[in-house]
Formats: sequence, C-alpha cells, structure tokens
Amino acid sequence: MTASSYGKAFELWRAAAQDEWQRYAHHAFVQGLGDGSLPHEAFLHYLRQDYVFLIHFARAWALAAAKAETLEEMQAAAATVHALVHIEMPLHVEVCAKEGISRDELEATPERKENLAYTRYVLEAGYSGDFLDLMAALAPCVLGYGEIGLRLAAEGAAETPYRNWIDTYAGEEFQSACREVGALIDAALQRRLGSNWEDLPRWRQLCGRFRTATELEEGFWAMGLSPDA
Amino acid sequence: MTASSYGKAFELWRAAAQDEWQRYAHHAFVQGLGDGSLPHEAFLHYLRQDYVFLIHFARAWALAAAKAETLEEMQAAAATVHALVHIEMPLHVEVCAKEGISRDELEATPERKENLAYTRYVLEAGYSGDFLDLMAALAPCVLGYGEIGLRLAAEGAAETPYRNWIDTYAGEEFQSACREVGALIDAALQRRLGSNWEDLPRWRQLCGRFRTATELEEGFWAMGLSPDA
Amino acid sequence: MTASSYGKAFELWRAAAQDEWQRYAHHAFVQGLGDGSLPHEAFLHYLRQDYVFLIHFARAWALAAAKAETLEEMQAAAATVHALVHIEMPLHVEVCAKEGISRDELEATPERKENLAYTRYVLEAGYSGDFLDLMAALAPCVLGYGEIGLRLAAEGAAETPYRNWIDTYAGEEFQSACREVGALIDAALQRRLGSNWEDLPRWRQLCGRFRTATELEEGFWAMGLSPDA
Amino acid sequence: MTASSYGKAFELWRAAAQDEWQRYAHHAFVQGLGDGSLPHEAFLHYLRQDYVFLIHFARAWALAAAKAETLEEMQAAAATVHALVHIEMPLHVEVCAKEGISRDELEATPERKENLAYTRYVLEAGYSGDFLDLMAALAPCVLGYGEIGLRLAAEGAAETPYRNWIDTYAGEEFQSACREVGALIDAALQRRLGSNWEDLPRWRQLCGRFRTATELEEGFWAMGLSPDA
Repeated sequence: MTASSYGKAFELWRAAAQDEWQRYAHHAFVQGLGDGSLPHEAFLHYLRQDYVFLIHFARAWALAAAKAETLEEMQAAAATVHALVHIEMPLHVEVCAKEGISRDELEATPERKENLAYTRYVLEAGYSGDFLDLMAALAPCVLGYGEIGLRLAAEGAAETPYRNWIDTYAGEEFQSACREVGALIDAALQRRLGSNWEDLPRWRQLCGRFRTATELEEGFWAMGLSPDA
Repeated sequence: MTASSYGKAFELWRAAAQDEWQRYAHHAFVQGLGDGSLPHEAFLHYLRQDYVFLIHFARAWALAAAKAETLEEMQAAAATVHALVHIEMPLHVEVCAKEGISRDELEATPERKENLAYTRYVLEAGYSGDFLDLMAALAPCVLGYGEIGLRLAAEGAAETPYRNWIDTYAGEEFQSACREVGALIDAALQRRLGSNWEDLPRWRQLCGRFRTATELEEGFWAMGLSPDA
Repeated sequence: MTASSYGKAFELWRAAAQDEWQRYAHHAFVQGLGDGSLPHEAFLHYLRQDYVFLIHFARAWALAAAKAETLEEMQAAAATVHALVHIEMPLHVEVCAKEGISRDELEATPERKENLAYTRYVLEAGYSGDFLDLMAALAPCVLGYGEIGLRLAAEGAAETPYRNWIDTYAGEEFQSACREVGALIDAALQRRLGSNWEDLPRWRQLCGRFRTATELEEGFWAMGLSPDA
Repeated sequence: MTASSYGKAFELWRAAAQDEWQRYAHHAFVQGLGDGSLPHEAFLHYLRQDYVFLIHFARAWALAAAKAETLEEMQAAAATVHALVHIEMPLHVEVCAKEGISRDELEATPERKENLAYTRYVLEAGYSGDFLDLMAALAPCVLGYGEIGLRLAAEGAAETPYRNWIDTYAGEEFQSACREVGALIDAALQRRLGSNWEDLPRWRQLCGRFRTATELEEGFWAMGLSPDA
C-alpha cells in the first residue's frame, strides 16, 4: 500500500508542490523520528506544541462540518472532530503524562509563532473560502502524517524510541482515516467542479493553498528542532 | 424537575421574552401534539421540514465548536454535533420511514421560508458574533423542546398519536442534554463576562438574540400548521 | 439599453429562475410604483424596512471586500460599501425625513421577518461560501432594481408619486453601477472557474443561490404591501 | 500631543503588554528609520511585504464593517477600508515606483511567513471572535505606527532618507485617524461591556489579542531586517 491510495487530488497536489513536499516529508525532524536520533527534548517540545495545534486543528475540522454541503461531508467532518476531541486529545494527554508532562503544563504551553502561523492560516482559509479551501489547507497534515508514518514503518530497521509515534500513523486506523479523507476530497471536488476539475483556475488556487500549508508544516518541524528559541 | 433546572441564563432569557416565549411554548401546534388534535398531515410536513432544519442546526453547533474558547466548550459542542449527525438524523430518517416518507423524499424537501429564516439567523449570528451569540440563538430550540416535552408529558392525560415525540423530549437523555447545555451557557457567560454578566449591555444584546430566535421558533410551528402554503 | 447589458451571468441566472424572476420583477408592489396605485402607507412602510435592509446589505458588501481575491474585486466591493454607507444611507434618511419619518424612528424600526430572512440568507451564504456565493445572493437586489427602474421609466406614461424612486434606479449613476457589478461577477466567475463556468456543478449551485435570493426579494415586496402584519 | 490621546483602551493595552510593546515600538528597524541607518535594501524589502500586508489589512477592516453593530461603527470601518484601498494602496504603489519597484513586481511579491502569520492571526481573530477581537488585533498596527511616527518626528535631529515615511505617520491626517480609531474602540467597549469593562475577563482576553498582535508586529520588523531569509 502506498500513499497514492489517498486519492487523485492528493497525488496532484503533492506533484504540484514537489520541492515543498520533499522538505516537509523528509525533514530532519522526521528522519530523527525514524532513526532515533531526534533529541528527546525536541520530541517533548513537539508534543507540547502539538497539543496547542490539535485544538485549532479540531476547530478547523468543525468549521468544515459547518461548511459542508452534503450530509456525507458533514458526517465525515463531524466524525473527525469527534475523533480529535474525544479520542486523539485524551490520548495525547496520556502520552504526554507518560513523558512527565502534566495536563496543566500542556494547557499552559505558550504557542510558538510557527504553530500560530500554520493554524491561523488554515482557519482563515476556511472562513474566507469554502469547504475546498479548508480541505486543501488540512490535507498536508492529515495525509502527510499518513505518508510519513508508512514510510518510516517500511524503512523501520533502526531501533528508535519513537516507534510508538510511527506505529500510530502507520497503523490501519490512521491509514484508513487517510483514505477516507482522500476520498472525501476527491468527491467534494467532483461535486462542485465536475469531472475535469484539474483543468480549472480554482484547482490552481487550491494547489496554492496546499503548497502554503505544506511550507507551514515544514516550519512546524523546524520549530520542533529548536525547543529553546 | 422543572425547566428552571436548565440554568440561570435560560431563566433570565425566558423572563425577558415572556410574551414571545408563551406564544412559542404554548403554540397551537404544541397543544395539538399534546392532546392529539394535530392533523397528521401537519405532523408529516413538520417532520420533513425538521430534516432540513436539523442539517443547519448541526452546522450551527459545528460552528460553535469552531468558536469555542476552552476544551470543555469544544467537547460539549462537538458532542452535540456528533449526536445530531450520527444519532438524531438517522433516527429522524427512521421515524420518517415509518410514516412512509423515504430518505430521498426527505432530501428533496423544498425548504420553507420560515425554516430558512430561522436557521440562517442562527448561523449568521454565530458567524458575525461569537460563541455567546450562537448559544443565545440556539437556546430557544434546545431548551424550549426540553420544556415543552416535560410539560406535555406532565399534562399527559390524553391519548395522543404523538406520544413518541413527547417521550423523546421529556426523556432523561434529552433532559440531561438540556441541563448540560444550560450549564455550558452559564459557564461561558461567567468565563467571558464575569459574575455580574446580567448587568452588562452585552447581556441585553444576547437577550435580543434569544427573543428573535424564539419568534422564529414560533414561526416554525406556524409553518407546521400550514403544510400547503 | 436593456437589462441584458448587466452581463452574461445575470442573463443566465435570470433565465434559470424565470418564474421567480417574473414574480419578483413584476410584483404588484412594483406595478404600483409604476402606475402610482401603491398606497402611500405601503411605500412609507417599505422605506422604513429598507433602512434596516440597507444596513445588512452594506455589511454583506463589506464581507465581499473581505473575501475578494484581487485588488480589483476588493476595490469594487469597497466602493459599493462606501457608496451605501456614506451616500445611499444619508440619502435614504433624507428621503424619509421629507416623508415625515425621523432618523430616530428609522433606527427604531422593528425588523420584519421577511427582511430578516433575506438579509441573513445573503450574509450566511457569504460566510459559509465564498465571494461567488455572495455575488449570486446579492445580484437579484442590485441588478433587479436596475432592471425594474429601467422598465418603469420606459413604461413611464402614468403620473406617479413615485417618479423619484423610479428615476433613481433608472438613472445613469445606478445603471452604471449595475453594469459594473455585472462585469465584476462575470470576471469573478472566469477567474475562478475558467471560460466554461456555465457547464460546472458549481454554477448550478450559484443558480440556486440566485433563485432563493430572488424569492426572498419577492417576499420583501409582499411585506411592503402589508404594513400592518 | 502624546500617544496617550489615542484613548483609554490603548493606554491600558499597552501597559498590559509593556515588554512586547517596547520591543515593537523601539525595534532596531524603527531606530534605523529614525537615524537613517536602515539599509536601503531592507526598506525596499519592507515596502514590498507591506504591499501584501495592506491587502489583508484592508480585508480585516472590511470584516470589521461586516461585524459592526452600529451605523457609526460601520461608517468608521468602511471609511478606513476606503482610505486603504483607494488612497493608501495607490500611494504605496507610487512610493514603490519612485524606488524602482513596479506594480507587477509588487503583486508578484512572495508573502513572507512573518507577514502571513500576522495577517491571518488578525483575520482569524475577527472571524472567530467579534468586532472587539478585531479591534484589539488591529490596534497595534494603526496606533503603533502613529506613536512611532510621532516619536521619530520629535527626536528628528538626524538626517534620514526615511523622512517621508516618518512625516506620513507623524502627520495630522494619520494622527487624526489614530485618535478616531482610539475613540471608536473606547466607544465599542463601553457599548458592549459597560463602564467597567476593564474589570471583566473579556477585557483580559482582548489584552491577550493585543499582546499577540504586538509580538507579530515585532516579527514583521525583524523580517524587514532580513530581506534575504
């Protein structure tokens, strides 16, 4: 199974932002997760910021539910919000607790600018644009983590203390969510823009959304590597 | 147990919109549900429009999740969206099926203006305002149905073909949801406006939101009585 | 000069909502303006509600400026807001003053439901959708008034006390604004959806927006005829 | 005349974000404008990014007009949009032309992340919150430039090639706009939150908005100093 099973739009978006995608998906932070060379302090820092990120990420998926145009779109977006808020976030709190980061500490995390830039970009894209703008801005995170998880799991020779992280995103539950998001996006494009959506200027705008969000994801990894900035 | 267990804000809002509330909560449509005099055709018409309503209502709660300021607010709003989209709506489809209304028919329901006016008012209040504006505009529906359900159940001497409807809203599951929404609202007010929120101009604006939404609920019942308009 | 000079999108929208457009553009209220048979009380009532309408209409054009994707779109929308807020509204206040309606009275006008339904529909379309959704929902008002003004002026045999109203909308200033809005819409469609935008599902959605807004305009005229409801 | 004439809210906001304000208002970029030591290349870079900034800034003020609750608020916000779009931006294009930067070059400016972070933060604050959130997020830019302009003009012994920039913001036109924005904010707070708004939790939230926006302004200056990053 390859990441290309995340649908047609994702494949085209990735191809249209090849350099940015490479820098994001093969970032030193990612490689450090895979080969275990990532300093533990950087990982803890990433976990703290990721808690703040998840809140805004869930808000963005909630906005997608508000902007959905079919019951199916609404159900898919609502299911994602539910999973994030009632499953992922409690899980995240648990993982952090094992690392010695209390919930109070998590909630008191000062938001880093790279984090703020990314999440507000996604939310603003959603508010100013429509469901498709949100999907294009959300895709690099969801589907990128899926692709990264799969690749690190496949490479997986090395001992790494981050095996858990890799397994979460390479695991069937997350992979299945990725395939559903990919299918949701393809159907949403078809529903609004017809069969030849990749020929329209609207598509090129969405490619721009995807590319910018990918760059901001890259910035998030870079932030992860500099806990003391 | 009385409706006053839905919290302080609700009690004050209702008191500030006494006439509108009376016309809504004691509407002929409501009385017809209670004593069984409501024509079946009116009920079917109401069910069809309610399907359209529920979609926009779920969108408004999703917007509330996007505009939440605490994890608790987000979880409460997300849980409501989830309940609406994955439980209420399938249930609604089922109830309608028993009445001989197919899902395709439901989805093809032309939206009546009274329905449109109400849902767009709520959504626009949420987009233009903040979480509190949304709560004030959503409260008459949620808490009003709770109050109406309770009252009809208490009066409940008469045989009525609408016993199921009454039981749903008088039932502990819905009543418990009402108490939670009431507590959510009180906490949200306190969190933003402090302990004396009922003395602030902002509160009076919210009373206006609640009153207008109550009038639009009344309009929804009136629409229910005129299936052929 | 005919209304067809308002651009291609408008012509297609109108054709796709022929019945609704006929009911709106040839409404008894409109005919009463043209032949002078409209009761003066109805006209005053309309003026009062129109004041409330203009506020929300200006808000919707401001939202269009916020959602614009080019400097030209932003300038066009901003110019409309400016004209509405700094020219139209003061003019409206003046016209009302001549009719004996004070500014305080105008500001205290209770918003009728038909008015609320229309304006919140437009604003919510804009918030949930994008610039095109706003244009489709705003077009029936702007371009419809232009078309109605032109037609009444051309028919213009009868003596009517509403000559001023007709001249305003038939006049070159308003007609030129209409042509600019029509061109803005055509360019916005082309810019996002390419040359064959009328073949896309997105276009059909926009036709739905236009149709619903046209029905709500019709409701506004009907409201005008019933000042005491 | 001192910056304290920009109103009560501004004074309190600044006091509550003293360190951030100091870093912003006395940034090396600012000092370089005042004493002429700012490298010309940094200034040109700033001008290019400022063009992109102004577009989003105008969008944010347009959103404020959409979210206004009184005609006065709407007129003030609309007047600002108008000034930005029809006066400031053409002026900016002219200033840039004199510096050898063509309009095409301006429009092709790739948006820097510091720029994106700031503008999306402001817009998202406005979409998710209400008029007050927007004002708190917009204030550091408008009123900060007013304060900086005044101070540099007062210090003004040195020869500096940036005299024009200083004169624009120290000039009566901009200073008068600042005083109006300050008064608009004070009135908007009073209107919603009553006379003791500074005692409410809502006010502390707004202080947080102001502080974050101030930090993002500081980031904008820092970006200005690194044209090649």
